[in-house]
Amino acid sequence: MRLAEYPREELELFYRNALRDYEACKAKGLRLDMSRGKPAKAQLDLSNELLRLPDGADCVVDGIDARNYGAVDGLPSCKRLFAEILGVSPAQVFAAGNASLNLMYDVVAKAHTHGLLRSDKPWGRLGRVKFLCPVPGYDRHFTVCETFGMEMISVPMTDEGPDMDVVESFAADPEVKGIWCVPKYSNPSGIVYSDRVIARLAALKPAAPDFIIMWDNAYCIHEFEGEYVPFPDILALCAAAGNPDMVFEFASTSKMTFPGAGVACFACSEANMAYMKKLMAAQVISYDKLNQLRHVLFLRDKANTLAHMKKHAALMKPKFDIVAEALERALGGLGIARWHKPKGGYFISLDVTDGCAKRVHALMKGAGVVMTGAGATFPYGLDPNDRNLRIAPSFPPEAELKEAAEALCVCVRLAAAEKLLSA
Amino acid sequence: MRLAEYPREELELFYRNALRDYEACKAKGLRLDMSRGKPAKAQLDLSNELLRLPDGADCVVDGIDARNYGAVDGLPSCKRLFAEILGVSPAQVFAAGNASLNLMYDVVAKAHTHGLLRSDKPWGRLGRVKFLCPVPGYDRHFTVCETFGMEMISVPMTDEGPDMDVVESFAADPEVKGIWCVPKYSNPSGIVYSDRVIARLAALKPAAPDFIIMWDNAYCIHEFEGEYVPFPDILALCAAAGNPDMVFEFASTSKMTFPGAGVACFACSEANMAYMKKLMAAQVISYDKLNQLRHVLFLRDKANTLAHMKKHAALMKPKFDIVAEALERALGGLGIARWHKPKGGYFISLDVTDGCAKRVHALMKGAGVVMTGAGATFPYGLDPNDRNLRIAPSFPPEAELKEAAEALCVCVRLAAAEKLLSA
Repeated sequence: MRLAEYPREELELFYRNALRDYEACKAKGLRLDMSRGKPAKAQLDLSNELLRLPDGADCVVDGIDARNYGAVDGLPSCKRLFAEILGVSPAQVFAAGNASLNLMYDVVAKAHTHGLLRSDKPWGRLGRVKFLCPVPGYDRHFTVCETFGMEMISVPMTDEGPDMDVVESFAADPEVKGIWCVPKYSNPSGIVYSDRVIARLAALKPAAPDFIIMWDNAYCIHEFEGEYVPFPDILALCAAAGNPDMVFEFASTSKMTFPGAGVACFACSEANMAYMKKLMAAQVISYDKLNQLRHVLFLRDKANTLAHMKKHAALMKPKFDIVAEALERALGGLGIARWHKPKGGYFISLDVTDGCAKRVHALMKGAGVVMTGAGATFPYGLDPNDRNLRIAPSFPPEAELKEAAEALCVCVRLAAAEKLLSA
Repeated sequence: MRLAEYPREELELFYRNALRDYEACKAKGLRLDMSRGKPAKAQLDLSNELLRLPDGADCVVDGIDARNYGAVDGLPSCKRLFAEILGVSPAQVFAAGNASLNLMYDVVAKAHTHGLLRSDKPWGRLGRVKFLCPVPGYDRHFTVCETFGMEMISVPMTDEGPDMDVVESFAADPEVKGIWCVPKYSNPSGIVYSDRVIARLAALKPAAPDFIIMWDNAYCIHEFEGEYVPFPDILALCAAAGNPDMVFEFASTSKMTFPGAGVACFACSEANMAYMKKLMAAQVISYDKLNQLRHVLFLRDKANTLAHMKKHAALMKPKFDIVAEALERALGGLGIARWHKPKGGYFISLDVTDGCAKRVHALMKGAGVVMTGAGATFPYGLDPNDRNLRIAPSFPPEAELKEAAEALCVCVRLAAAEKLLSA
């Protein structure tokens, strides 16, 4: 039965039980962190071979000494590796440093200071710049918009991607300059964009000539359940739809090897590449090609990389199962929470009773469990319904995660009961 | 005798000999590159131990797993290493990725988009921003100014640093927002700023409240001749003069270990640090801490780093000697070239006869030797006297360098004779 339909007496009993469970939970003195999509130590250990590479001292590859200056867009062999994984051509790939966030920031920063390839003027000289933000979404995307004073427009997510009717309608506004997308295992909802949604995105006819799709393919090969799910080449789709320069795709090895010491890339049309390389030349002589070489030697090719990702999957799936089972067992059928069970990525998005997300977050904090801030999945940190929470199960060991998931369920039950009783 | 004083007949003979030497030079079919301050392979090999670090798989240092996300301002042990080398405190150090140019760009970019700590508004919203550029200087500094549309003002270098009378006079203009400085073994002149110049810089009272000294200490421990020369802590000097927030200092291991795979840092007041960290948080989760750890394990401390630099010196000094000897032998006393003999850094700055630098550069190209573009050491690539050339002796092997230096002397003699004959 849905909690909202409980007779008052039973609701009060439910509340007292929840409160008792919460006190028991607090008494455990937990100190857990489920706040960020951080790989666990065991996942990092999967790539420790990187620490010994390049083996022997020969660092010359593609005729380039990876230790020295040069090759601003990366080692050709590293470009080839990313190209194979993303299904694009090596000439479309710019291989860089350790963080795709850096590259996303760079693209938006260049738009702000210099304009993009098809801009009439730098965005910083325009009166107003609006950006579409599918919600719930990734807080760091929103922070990039915020730091440049852009107006963020929330676009609801459906279970096959952003609501394209809404996207198309907003794209008719020339002040709307772009959209953030995490097309596979979206952060945090875990949704995979459908082919239909992707086709509509690629065929978008925005009013702004320099509208940009920020295609953050952070989890492109990050299945933890089932086989690898192929994904379309967004660059080719945009080009086929007459929008060759409308997209920058981003990826990294952060969640393949070491989050802090991986290699990131962007992929774009060759015209965008020429334009960006010219602007980047003022900023950088070259990225860490030695680390690119390490990754080429370790990951080798797409097939080997997918095999490596299976090892991550083996560590990740039990953790997602722990959370899913706890949620199902403690919250199923009560009508006080909704969640999607993803097959890849790093998050579970949990919608609790409207008006209760902050309360749940505070209760969790009281019980010693840090979660991503309530509201963080929305622009400006403002969840209009105060209902979304992001669960990041990867980092804690299984035993701790179990405790954290159970604590979460207790808090969701308690907050829902409080709300109903006070109504 | 000075060439200008040669009787016409002797000058013509000098010219014919130079032309004959040049043709002989061309006939060798050289393919040499003296264009950039790139360490040679033998120098890179000095740090190959880095390729095997961290030895064993324990990457936890200072309680931080260097493989994972976090610690945006770097590993504490890496901050301590740079702090010791620069003579500042670890809290003043931000340890980052592989390139100090990136960090310099970031500081100027943040000034442009957001303003610095003491800015009234972002520089990008001001009508005009001027920046002081001691000349000859480093082309990549000028490119950073140029990409943000700043007006560069050349300041002559004396043999103890920038002409401070000129600097002080321009700093009275509120549109003048900063100055580039390479205080030790200046690029390209090889000058070490005197204590007197440094004191005047630190005590500058610029009209702009957000005036910034970009203190590029690229060659802070890069002596190749004689003992290590201590340098003052510019942060402390600025603070003592009441200008705690007027300077950002930059350094990197690019020319200690691997140019493409080193660690860079900036150092600044704690107020600037707090301000910058907040802005950088939108751009980066963390830099490559694993590479920072490698460098901490390899370089260890200042004493060991200085010992390591002695090995570079042993490879560098013979190359600078080759160039200096060639110049002295072929050009000495003729009054057609001037140069400074540096004791550290990566360059020799050569002033040829006025109006001849581009000609010498073209002649060298004709002989198969690539040099840094004539004019590159001046803002906008415009050397008003067309006389400065930057010699970068580090990269070519000694035998090739000898050929290149001899070719250079031939070209300088030929260009000077051409000029005098056509006068």
